[in-house]
Amino acid sequence: MADSDRSPVSVIGLGAMGRALAGALLDRGHPTTVWNRTAGRAGELAARGATVAATAAEAVAASPVTVICVLDYEAVRETLDPVAGTLTGRTLVNLTNGTPEQARTTAGWAAGHGVDYVDGGIMAVPPMIGQDGALILYSGSQEAFTAHERTLGALGTATYLGEDAGRASLYDLALLSAMYGMFGGFFHAVAMTGSEKVPAAEFTPLVVAWLNAMIAGLPAMAAALDSGDHSADDSNVEMQAASYVNLLDASRAQGVSTELVEPMGALLRRAVAAGRGAGAVSSLIDLLHTDHAGN
Amino acid sequence: MADSDRSPVSVIGLGAMGRALAGALLDRGHPTTVWNRTAGRAGELAARGATVAATAAEAVAASPVTVICVLDYEAVRETLDPVAGTLTGRTLVNLTNGTPEQARTTAGWAAGHGVDYVDGGIMAVPPMIGQDGALILYSGSQEAFTAHERTLGALGTATYLGEDAGRASLYDLALLSAMYGMFGGFFHAVAMTGSEKVPAAEFTPLVVAWLNAMIAGLPAMAAALDSGDHSADDSNVEMQAASYVNLLDASRAQGVSTELVEPMGALLRRAVAAGRGAGAVSSLIDLLHTDHAGN
Repeated sequence: MADSDRSPVSVIGLGAMGRALAGALLDRGHPTTVWNRTAGRAGELAARGATVAATAAEAVAASPVTVICVLDYEAVRETLDPVAGTLTGRTLVNLTNGTPEQARTTAGWAAGHGVDYVDGGIMAVPPMIGQDGALILYSGSQEAFTAHERTLGALGTATYLGEDAGRASLYDLALLSAMYGMFGGFFHAVAMTGSEKVPAAEFTPLVVAWLNAMIAGLPAMAAALDSGDHSADDSNVEMQAASYVNLLDASRAQGVSTELVEPMGALLRRAVAAGRGAGAVSSLIDLLHTDHAGN
Repeated sequence: MADSDRSPVSVIGLGAMGRALAGALLDRGHPTTVWNRTAGRAGELAARGATVAATAAEAVAASPVTVICVLDYEAVRETLDPVAGTLTGRTLVNLTNGTPEQARTTAGWAAGHGVDYVDGGIMAVPPMIGQDGALILYSGSQEAFTAHERTLGALGTATYLGEDAGRASLYDLALLSAMYGMFGGFFHAVAMTGSEKVPAAEFTPLVVAWLNAMIAGLPAMAAALDSGDHSADDSNVEMQAASYVNLLDASRAQGVSTELVEPMGALLRRAVAAGRGAGAVSSLIDLLHTDHAGN
């Protein structure tokens, strides 16, 4: 069925995220059918015009595309295995959190049942869904993605990453690790200043300005990684490893746990021990590949 | 002596950073006297108009303000102890990397010799010195800072943080920990996508956009920390701890070391165990205070 601004969509899974997804579809005027394993979650959506299906099969049968967003991939399989026959010839968009491996396994399952499969990773919290700021990564069947791209655009900015169903999940988890790294650095930073009773609100604008300035250096690190040229023009690994000791010492002196910052210190020391002291800090990234450490 | 655009300044320590500092002063027309413990570093600066002092005492005697930037605080003391008498009545601006404790100890030493003391932290690499983008944090004697603020402005954007000489160093190290956290997250992220041969330059623009979006959330975390109100309106600690398992599992499956990301997973689990599962992730920060863990 051709995509249009009013294509019918079914949404399975009505946790906070599933409800936000269904709500965004309703807001754009899509006939929306919803279903949740546990009843009682659909009240507000029904009031906004959603059709509440009695069974998963009924939900899947109602639309050319079903969006599923449940707790984990085990719940995906438990929910969809019994209705695989109904899904045949339709499109399944799986926005459940998981790993690339789980996404690929599910893509294989879908292929075995003649289901067009698109996996996705939602880079947003529920209140952001339906806004341009909500980034949603997709990968898997390009044909299915293209057919329903306009519909998926109702949920947020849709970015397609290729035929490999695991790619969206890989990018999702990689972006999350970047975010948690930044959060961890921020947590440690405000714990340090907090140890001297500096209000976090007083210190944080400086962190924001500083991180924005440092983010500008990431593309250069990426270029160094791709080219393998980690030559340092200013602060090299050895200098950074040396000054990192101050960071650890001062943290302990301030009564702040070094648990979040210790691993970077260890990685810097390992890089120095591996003879990378004169190079740029971008050379540390290779050391994270456990299957070919030192490459 | 009153500050002016052409106040004489002495610079002790001619490593890459010291040379950049002296160069920026020369660029602004300050009569600049330089000295380094090891000879042979001053050639280019002399060619640009710097006076090369024969001894540290001669350097200190040449200007109302001496900027020192050497390897560590031990080198500061070794260099300045013999010339303390010459420094009396003058201003010492110490831009050497160190801890808040070292800064305070040095402030005490300076007070004992009648030296006006300002400690500083340089949030820039040498090529940035002299530009507005180079942030330099100062703390210690407000009178001395104000008297030489215009001169110090030649080095970068000068920000004064208060009379506590240790404050600049505390902020410096806290900001560095925030930066290293972000770098660590980025390293892990590109290692993950790199494990599937995605060029870092292809993935990094997405990281930059994503981190810029996530940075916007830091002030809200700071407000939660200051108020103690860590109520979660969307993704709480328990949900994040659960989905963090995917990040760790997928990292291992991709052959990427979890060394940089494991501590945040452990902190999330500890927060859940401490009964903070229903709260916002900002509540994790308190757990980093080792002297009152669990507050």
